[in-house]
Amino acid sequence: MTTNRIFNFSAGPAVLPLEVLEEARENLTSMPGVGMSILEISHRSKPFDEIIEGAEADIRQLAGIPEGYHVLFLQGGASLQFSMVPMNLLPTGGTADYVVTGAWSQKAVKEAKRVGAVKIAATTEADNFSRVPRQEELTLDPGSAYVHYTTNNTIFGTEFGYVPEVGGVPLVADTSSDMFSGPIDVSKFALIYAGAQKNLAPAGVTLVIVRDDLLKRTPSSIPTMLQYPVHVENKSLYNTPPVFTIYVMRLVLRWLLKQGGLPAIDAVNTRKADKLYAEIDRTGFYKAHAQPGSRSRMNVTFRLPSEALEKVFAKEATAAGLDGLKGHRSVGGMRASIYNAFPEPGVDALVNFMRAFEQRNG
Amino acid sequence: MTTNRIFNFSAGPAVLPLEVLEEARENLTSMPGVGMSILEISHRSKPFDEIIEGAEADIRQLAGIPEGYHVLFLQGGASLQFSMVPMNLLPTGGTADYVVTGAWSQKAVKEAKRVGAVKIAATTEADNFSRVPRQEELTLDPGSAYVHYTTNNTIFGTEFGYVPEVGGVPLVADTSSDMFSGPIDVSKFALIYAGAQKNLAPAGVTLVIVRDDLLKRTPSSIPTMLQYPVHVENKSLYNTPPVFTIYVMRLVLRWLLKQGGLPAIDAVNTRKADKLYAEIDRTGFYKAHAQPGSRSRMNVTFRLPSEALEKVFAKEATAAGLDGLKGHRSVGGMRASIYNAFPEPGVDALVNFMRAFEQRNG
Repeated sequence: MTTNRIFNFSAGPAVLPLEVLEEARENLTSMPGVGMSILEISHRSKPFDEIIEGAEADIRQLAGIPEGYHVLFLQGGASLQFSMVPMNLLPTGGTADYVVTGAWSQKAVKEAKRVGAVKIAATTEADNFSRVPRQEELTLDPGSAYVHYTTNNTIFGTEFGYVPEVGGVPLVADTSSDMFSGPIDVSKFALIYAGAQKNLAPAGVTLVIVRDDLLKRTPSSIPTMLQYPVHVENKSLYNTPPVFTIYVMRLVLRWLLKQGGLPAIDAVNTRKADKLYAEIDRTGFYKAHAQPGSRSRMNVTFRLPSEALEKVFAKEATAAGLDGLKGHRSVGGMRASIYNAFPEPGVDALVNFMRAFEQRNG
Repeated sequence: MTTNRIFNFSAGPAVLPLEVLEEARENLTSMPGVGMSILEISHRSKPFDEIIEGAEADIRQLAGIPEGYHVLFLQGGASLQFSMVPMNLLPTGGTADYVVTGAWSQKAVKEAKRVGAVKIAATTEADNFSRVPRQEELTLDPGSAYVHYTTNNTIFGTEFGYVPEVGGVPLVADTSSDMFSGPIDVSKFALIYAGAQKNLAPAGVTLVIVRDDLLKRTPSSIPTMLQYPVHVENKSLYNTPPVFTIYVMRLVLRWLLKQGGLPAIDAVNTRKADKLYAEIDRTGFYKAHAQPGSRSRMNVTFRLPSEALEKVFAKEATAAGLDGLKGHRSVGGMRASIYNAFPEPGVDALVNFMRAFEQRNG
């Protein structure tokens, strides 16, 4: 951290590795050997070919993606995927199973219902989404077109510690807020999507990994821009992609590889989250929103003894250079988002701040 | 121009003002007073509020937008607008008039036909799109849901020199490649959209200006992300917008205002294009693709006496620091894209290069 950077606990767009920012800055007015800014190059140019092909290769390497999967860079965020998934994969008369674990799953359900029939395989709404369901709680229909779930719930601070067992039904996952926070067995999934602005890149690009056999389901009647096969055929260049955002994603992917890949970042993420949860659980002054076994390593949500104290906490934390800690209104309290690029010294600083705050106010 | 920058004649993504790039670079690792990169700030933060509200205010000021219009910053490019326009504005059983002046209009027609009935108000395909139709050539249906046209045709190098008179029917324009290249009378339009990567910003954001009374047409059955009213209600923040791209757009808008606004840039653009067309027309060695009266000031398309010479021209031009001049395959020859930010010395350099090339090969 340079002295003019604070600790950014924002839920997304979120912190990026400083070396990524510094490298991007170097290419902002003129890329060496190209003579133009990374913001100006054509998406049909050789420099961009290298960037987007390199990004795909890095993703395949990081996740060990097996044969038969396509990697796409799209626009519109996870919110557009909420529609693209059912429009492409849910045939007329079919049904899809949705696991509901928070606001984003609910939005996915809402969009799927515009397309076809949805069954709720499980919901933890009765627990105010303080946990994800256990495998045995999932009511799955073997005839379902697919099963959809959200791997990490940014707002509530919960995360699946397991990949649901869904038999032969295609499994679709919104991994927006924990993609590449640890190893992922892509072979268990039919389709994975992730808005990039948490763990992967700045806002403006959406990563989609889709298994080849799913592509034949797409009805030709839907808008061209919403057809996965069109983007597969055109290698994400059906129209102009967000060139710069994909470029920064590539830098982040290379940074990830340099850290040691997904197992290495997994260890760091676990250590960072463990430190925070240990402090939260230490005396009972702080209370975690998420139940043990469902706690997110990306978004750590906790309450203080009163809303008044929570306001003081947020204000004093910001003044201490710990920014973005105010929780989402549906949970209240605080939320510390500590994605891959969030530096461990920032977690230590928050733990120290929490300790001192409790001593002053406990 | 700094010495390490070449002249970028690319059709888009395209050249940006150097001072915009330099200012963006300053905020790449830490924004003063914020302590984080412009790539990391939340779309719900005060710094971003100022950016997006400032961008809207600048757009309203530049174009003198009257009351009753909304300004939106969306994703997906003009290609997604090809679908959003009919999905929002074409009621069941209605028809829409489309003016066809090139590949992009054709794509717009293709997407509209997935939604409803399309009438071709005019097409200049028989002339290989070397011109736009005259007002009297337009066959307009007064009962049409809207009339759609493309103000500038990037590939063919033609541009409308007038706004079609369409009576009381809502006029919809794809202005992707000449938006803000000169004054625009927004009051004549019901909806204007522009992929930003030519005149407005890097790739990744789409400007939409929509008249309020159009919003009531949107059927609630279409995907939430494709509903204009949703983006209006949420001030383009229904989901995470492309923060950085909107930020750079704001810098470009401020640069435009500093140049003297749309009348001033209009004069520069006319002067730049006039220089190029004068050289093209000088001896007959070069031949413009676009007919007089339809010639684009943004994309100047021309042929040489042979394809062999065109290859030599492109190669030697690139070596001379004049890059991106190869034309689109559907026209062949050369294309010089000289958007707002393209520096006039680059036009002079191209004119000199053309003169010398003709002397060597004429």
